[in-house]
Amino acid sequence: MRKRAPKAAGDKVLKGDATRRAIVGRALKIAAAEGLAALTIGRLAGDLGMSKSGLFAHFRSKRTLELATIDRARDVFASAVSISAEDSPEGIGRLWSLCHFWLRHVEERVFAGSYFFAGAFFEYAQQSGPVPDRIRGATREWLAALKRAVKQAQKLGEIERNANAERTAFELNGLLVGAHWTHLVGDHEALRKARAAVLSKLRSLATREIPLKAFESVRDFRAYLKERHR
Amino acid sequence: MRKRAPKAAGDKVLKGDATRRAIVGRALKIAAAEGLAALTIGRLAGDLGMSKSGLFAHFRSKRTLELATIDRARDVFASAVSISAEDSPEGIGRLWSLCHFWLRHVEERVFAGSYFFAGAFFEYAQQSGPVPDRIRGATREWLAALKRAVKQAQKLGEIERNANAERTAFELNGLLVGAHWTHLVGDHEALRKARAAVLSKLRSLATREIPLKAFESVRDFRAYLKERHR
Repeated sequence: MRKRAPKAAGDKVLKGDATRRAIVGRALKIAAAEGLAALTIGRLAGDLGMSKSGLFAHFRSKRTLELATIDRARDVFASAVSISAEDSPEGIGRLWSLCHFWLRHVEERVFAGSYFFAGAFFEYAQQSGPVPDRIRGATREWLAALKRAVKQAQKLGEIERNANAERTAFELNGLLVGAHWTHLVGDHEALRKARAAVLSKLRSLATREIPLKAFESVRDFRAYLKERHR
Repeated sequence: MRKRAPKAAGDKVLKGDATRRAIVGRALKIAAAEGLAALTIGRLAGDLGMSKSGLFAHFRSKRTLELATIDRARDVFASAVSISAEDSPEGIGRLWSLCHFWLRHVEERVFAGSYFFAGAFFEYAQQSGPVPDRIRGATREWLAALKRAVKQAQKLGEIERNANAERTAFELNGLLVGAHWTHLVGDHEALRKARAAVLSKLRSLATREIPLKAFESVRDFRAYLKERHR
């Protein structure tokens, strides 16, 4: 019996961890569709067929649960967007990929709604506290990834050195967020047009290293990137 | 005594109405800064020094209070943006004014936060029910005002007839929403630059009725509009 005790304890930890993951998974689904405020211990317990006290054993407060949910949303976002873009070589191609995967995460409904991080960002932008800080952290990470990609492209001589990397990141993000809104009001062309607008922005920033004909269409640009990096 | 009764009853109605307005005013302040979900009867009663039951006498449910708060937000938005823009004569000047006053409502913090209607829109965009419907209604009203202004400008020969009015409204809105985000992450130039971007969009749509030099700067455009309509 004593010999098996460590294994049994390990199983329990594992099971506890799996339960915790399931709780956060469900919490993410609710929050992504209806906002963090829709997340109540009662509803979550009901959805998962758990007791409220069972849930409290994993998350001692609603706050802890909210923070875990934001962290999961951030992981999901990173995996769908930033990490996916890392397969592209550094430079203007990476910058393009970041925008492309961002639009794809909207298109493919990676989240169960439009709350993360658009609704959450506007809701918490002017508040203080751990939840707003965590939401802002996710936004900052995303803007930093865009900015880093601009700087790398500048270092590689693909984007003009005098372009302001931070401002470029802001502008690309503004374009994406605006397209998200337009997509949500039912314009089926919004995301396709956003890709064209991103490309046009990149053309305006690119050095002569990149042939102008690469920017003629999204298709041309993709073909150019593929050709160049094979 | 009997003679004064009607007046007293009138006073009571008036007082009830004033109380109701005060409740919604406070509710708007909370919701605009922290989201509709932060609006609880308990907190509101505490803020206003009322009993919960006193509050319930005015709003029989949280839902009724939420809807009244959205309606108030819509009125505030309309007054700051759409109604303000109506002072400009119909046409491209009206379209400009709508965008200008939209940016000004962000600049001047007409709302106590960035929730209405940006956070609210993204939060409720993919939900159903009376609250999401009301939020969508406000968004639709705004987009319709933009679209109507584009069509009026087309009718007056100031904007090319082949421009798609709905798409133009979407694009202008996308530009404004993106700038709002950029402003919130701390780019102090975001709103100024958004005005330049709106102007550049208008230039790309304008007919030869409008002299090209009117589009050289926001200042030039304002001077042109002023000159023309005096």
